[in-house]
Amino acid sequence: MTVDHTAHARAQRTPAITPVLPTRSLRQGISLDDVTLVTDGFWGQLQQTNAAATLDHCREWMERLGWLENFDRVARGETITDRPGWEFSDSEVYKLLEAMAWQLGRRADLDLEQTFDGLVARVAAAQDRDGYLCTAYGHPGLPRRYSDLSSGHELYNLGHLMQAAVARVRTAGADDRLVDVARRAADHVCETFGAGRSGLCGHPEVEVALAELGRALDEGRYIEQARIFVERRGHRTLPVRPLLSAEYFQDDQPVREAEVLRGHAVRALYLAAGAVDVAVETGDDELLDALVQQWRRTVERRTYITGGMGSRHQDEGFGEDWELPPDRAYCETCAGIAAIMFSWRLYLATGGVEYADFIERVLYNVVAVSPSPDGRAFFYSNPLHQREPGDSASSSVNMRAEGSTRAPWFDVSCCPTNVARTLASVDSFFAATDGEGLTLLQYASGTYRTPALTVAVHTEYPAQGAIALTVLDAAEDPATLRLRVPSWADGAALTVGSEPVRTVTPGWSEVTRTWRAGERVLLDLPVVPRFSWPHPRIDAVRGTVAVERGPLVLALESGDLPEGWTIDDVRVRTRSLPERDGDGAAVRAALAALERADTSGLPYTAEQVPTGDAGEGALRLIPYHRWAERGPSTMRVFLPVQH
Amino acid sequence: MTVDHTAHARAQRTPAITPVLPTRSLRQGISLDDVTLVTDGFWGQLQQTNAAATLDHCREWMERLGWLENFDRVARGETITDRPGWEFSDSEVYKLLEAMAWQLGRRADLDLEQTFDGLVARVAAAQDRDGYLCTAYGHPGLPRRYSDLSSGHELYNLGHLMQAAVARVRTAGADDRLVDVARRAADHVCETFGAGRSGLCGHPEVEVALAELGRALDEGRYIEQARIFVERRGHRTLPVRPLLSAEYFQDDQPVREAEVLRGHAVRALYLAAGAVDVAVETGDDELLDALVQQWRRTVERRTYITGGMGSRHQDEGFGEDWELPPDRAYCETCAGIAAIMFSWRLYLATGGVEYADFIERVLYNVVAVSPSPDGRAFFYSNPLHQREPGDSASSSVNMRAEGSTRAPWFDVSCCPTNVARTLASVDSFFAATDGEGLTLLQYASGTYRTPALTVAVHTEYPAQGAIALTVLDAAEDPATLRLRVPSWADGAALTVGSEPVRTVTPGWSEVTRTWRAGERVLLDLPVVPRFSWPHPRIDAVRGTVAVERGPLVLALESGDLPEGWTIDDVRVRTRSLPERDGDGAAVRAALAALERADTSGLPYTAEQVPTGDAGEGALRLIPYHRWAERGPSTMRVFLPVQH
Repeated sequence: MTVDHTAHARAQRTPAITPVLPTRSLRQGISLDDVTLVTDGFWGQLQQTNAAATLDHCREWMERLGWLENFDRVARGETITDRPGWEFSDSEVYKLLEAMAWQLGRRADLDLEQTFDGLVARVAAAQDRDGYLCTAYGHPGLPRRYSDLSSGHELYNLGHLMQAAVARVRTAGADDRLVDVARRAADHVCETFGAGRSGLCGHPEVEVALAELGRALDEGRYIEQARIFVERRGHRTLPVRPLLSAEYFQDDQPVREAEVLRGHAVRALYLAAGAVDVAVETGDDELLDALVQQWRRTVERRTYITGGMGSRHQDEGFGEDWELPPDRAYCETCAGIAAIMFSWRLYLATGGVEYADFIERVLYNVVAVSPSPDGRAFFYSNPLHQREPGDSASSSVNMRAEGSTRAPWFDVSCCPTNVARTLASVDSFFAATDGEGLTLLQYASGTYRTPALTVAVHTEYPAQGAIALTVLDAAEDPATLRLRVPSWADGAALTVGSEPVRTVTPGWSEVTRTWRAGERVLLDLPVVPRFSWPHPRIDAVRGTVAVERGPLVLALESGDLPEGWTIDDVRVRTRSLPERDGDGAAVRAALAALERADTSGLPYTAEQVPTGDAGEGALRLIPYHRWAERGPSTMRVFLPVQH
Repeated sequence: MTVDHTAHARAQRTPAITPVLPTRSLRQGISLDDVTLVTDGFWGQLQQTNAAATLDHCREWMERLGWLENFDRVARGETITDRPGWEFSDSEVYKLLEAMAWQLGRRADLDLEQTFDGLVARVAAAQDRDGYLCTAYGHPGLPRRYSDLSSGHELYNLGHLMQAAVARVRTAGADDRLVDVARRAADHVCETFGAGRSGLCGHPEVEVALAELGRALDEGRYIEQARIFVERRGHRTLPVRPLLSAEYFQDDQPVREAEVLRGHAVRALYLAAGAVDVAVETGDDELLDALVQQWRRTVERRTYITGGMGSRHQDEGFGEDWELPPDRAYCETCAGIAAIMFSWRLYLATGGVEYADFIERVLYNVVAVSPSPDGRAFFYSNPLHQREPGDSASSSVNMRAEGSTRAPWFDVSCCPTNVARTLASVDSFFAATDGEGLTLLQYASGTYRTPALTVAVHTEYPAQGAIALTVLDAAEDPATLRLRVPSWADGAALTVGSEPVRTVTPGWSEVTRTWRAGERVLLDLPVVPRFSWPHPRIDAVRGTVAVERGPLVLALESGDLPEGWTIDDVRVRTRSLPERDGDGAAVRAALAALERADTSGLPYTAEQVPTGDAGEGALRLIPYHRWAERGPSTMRVFLPVQH
């Protein structure tokens, strides 16, 4: 794949309120002030809850646990010997600041602004004169600066600080206290780790952050520093603690030489996102090519049907190709968010529809799974099979990224604030422009404006497949409306104004014409439930099938089983197709009567265990993102098939 | 299950050279001086290599890494700030001493005796006046004694010291320097952690060790201390570090209330073994009942076909019921050894044949898998599926318990020395007596003597099924010869002297008569290869079958595939039964031609991927314990079935 930089250069760079704004790219994300989601739509509602509950929830927890006071103690010059939180707890504060900044950009809110300013003041007070900022290192009683680059997370923390500042630059301008703090931190990083020096962070993140801060502040040396960090990685220079490996840190192989993502999933995906930024900014097509190939193989062989990534609890890591166990799927929420970051950047660079398809999958089946309806509890890992119901959600910290109920907070609490910042800016992934027309990547009710075309979208998607567009405003010249027909949407139909209905195939569907206000376009996506068959190489789900409905992966949850049925003895009859049932589906199934034909006591026998039917019926499947909302339960996405 | 203590009391307690000698039990292990294995038999050969190579290999590595010098530094009173090795490295030295002690008990060896004495002297010199002995705590520069009971492993270390001393008491008598050291350590433990005090070790081991040392030295208070530790556990008193859990330490539930083994597998199994000892010594039938039930459910639902236990790399732990992924099977070698320890104690207490069956499975398919033919490299984890060939065996330390080749040493190096002590005493599990007759639990060529009956066994088992016994000596009274017919041995035949051949069924087969020297008994076990079907509840191997041959689990390894075949595209045709092929088997199989029917890029599609045949042939399977002896390879135990 070669990017046509001439085309890039042509694309008009308009200053936009968006998390990612490459200097050159084929597409540009629509500015957040050009999108207005309706508040009762799928994402509008989540965004509303995020603003109304989650932001406060996160702040309260971090206050309670002393993660905020860590900044005050550093500011006071205390000798700190009993610091609460992990080395990366500062980053949670920064991710919260980023979420608040996006939210403030959407809607003025004096209380929130004051809270934001208060937090920024506490952060700023803890910054050293030379720009260094960290509450876990480099101050009296704490280990010295950068004394443990592999695990210390200092640059990772600063990366999140810079991303918060990017949100601030884009929504409130560069003349801002948080932006000043981040700028001084970035300068410090460039001075400490610049060309001719050495060192990199065990947890990638500062790369993607430096690149965007460089774009936002037009500081080329931040981008150069991002490039240096990307190139410096992969040469086994990071000290490896016992029981870890260079692969864990992506330090085993240079980014441009790798064939697939590997090691710790969030690390790998943040790094890949930053590497796309570097490739795009430096015109490094070889690097971009490598990243496109890595994305492809990772999606083809190391990704769950939910779009979740990370097959292993051990090391929170990718597994090998085809290693995709549903029960022990780690699928960290943050890995989903990082996968969106990576995919979105590849979309902007290439315009490929596969990235938009993938982002939709992750949004509905990873990101939307995490928060509880009240926005005050979260999933950290997102397994696709729960054999035993977990404990009831408690009000205490969940030490482990496990359990079948959402938890209000975690000991390692990266996910809640990551969800918060993602939901606060989620509409930035919904529409784009090539400088001329409007591209709709995701379908959510609201209005979308580009200079050439403004449309209102009305839809009940994903519950319903009808997406009605009304042109609100249009330039006089012809303009292109580009609509994504999802990969699963065979038989989708498009009606433009009074023209006859036409069938459109998966991919981009484009209509170029002179538009007039009031004109209507109807895209009808077939969201009937369908079976999805796993590739035979995925050993862990051999002999099973999943059910999807539109972009939603469905799940069978114990609460929907007839009396006396157990989730793991269900056998789906695939001769009857699944039928609609609300926003889920109904499938025909039998209950297997598992007799033990036991001689040795071990569950391996000379004859196959006979599996007669102990029952039969239609079973309701619900959207996976809504599982475990009715208390502890058992659940399956992949259902064994009855032969 | 209730144990008949009257029966126990009747069983004659003869002083025997054996690792486990309960005060009361239904069976007693045969004394090691009453067994002589032939050196070219399966186990005789392993024992030979262990003595000739492994003992030295382990000592050399521990000398090189400074784990032995740790004792010298403590003895010298150095201030230690740079101690090499984990907190539990002392235990590796003790396990090596135990292995040496058993080996010295088998055959006098002046060089080995001198090496042994030299090591004991270094250990003894590091012991504190009050009996405390640890090179990782309690001395200048090190953390203070028992300051981290959860992770410190101090009592775990001392447990292994005591087990080494047991081997010494039984083989060389109680008047011994190592025994003195262990006795002082045990006294110290009783004083520090006795009744009215608190505390227990994060890694069980001292329980089983105290119980046996108590038996060996006739010290009731050691047994009482073991009882205290067993009862003290399960009340959530151990501090839990972040990311761990009380379950990990088996501190979530009292032993007598648990239903299944859970948490860290080696911890759970060592604890269970010690708890059996406590139950037997104190006549606590409720506790013994609970352990029998835990064994049963664990074997039925949490055990691999190899007998391996521990489904998770994360926490080296048991999974939930039916969570048995073949690729990520941890199946730590030490867990196999610990499972034998647990099972052997239940056999002695109850005489149940299922324990002997299970021990055989673990011996051939976990313990024998670990060492390389030269006895200088080891498997730590024992997966049942290898998708990618690992790196070549190197001469360096393997940081991870992973990889498809045996490694000479590990950062966490519990397995090599555990294999060494187990092989050095492996014949102790082969035969037993009820005080009157001879029970053969395992079949290995050699002679076995009890007061009533001495027999010579000649067999090529497990490669061949014929087991020929010749009576060498017999008492004048009738005596019972009890032979185990393995659970898989349907159609086994027994011929006693000139009597007609009779079919015997799995379980114990007993012949009681007046024996005369020269009489012959022939047991013919059907070691033809057979398919073994996993229980349908084991999701991870749905649609697959394994092949076993006698006690051996077989495996398909890439080196035995025709040109152009890949291990994961093999489909077995189960209409043809597997056939003999050397000590392995041959199966009919097809090579699946996997076409990608791809729309979205993800490996989940609306139609099942068609799997035409790209080839067909007979494939050779080898014993699993011999996999990876030809360099890095791919491997499967469970083979997908062609429908």
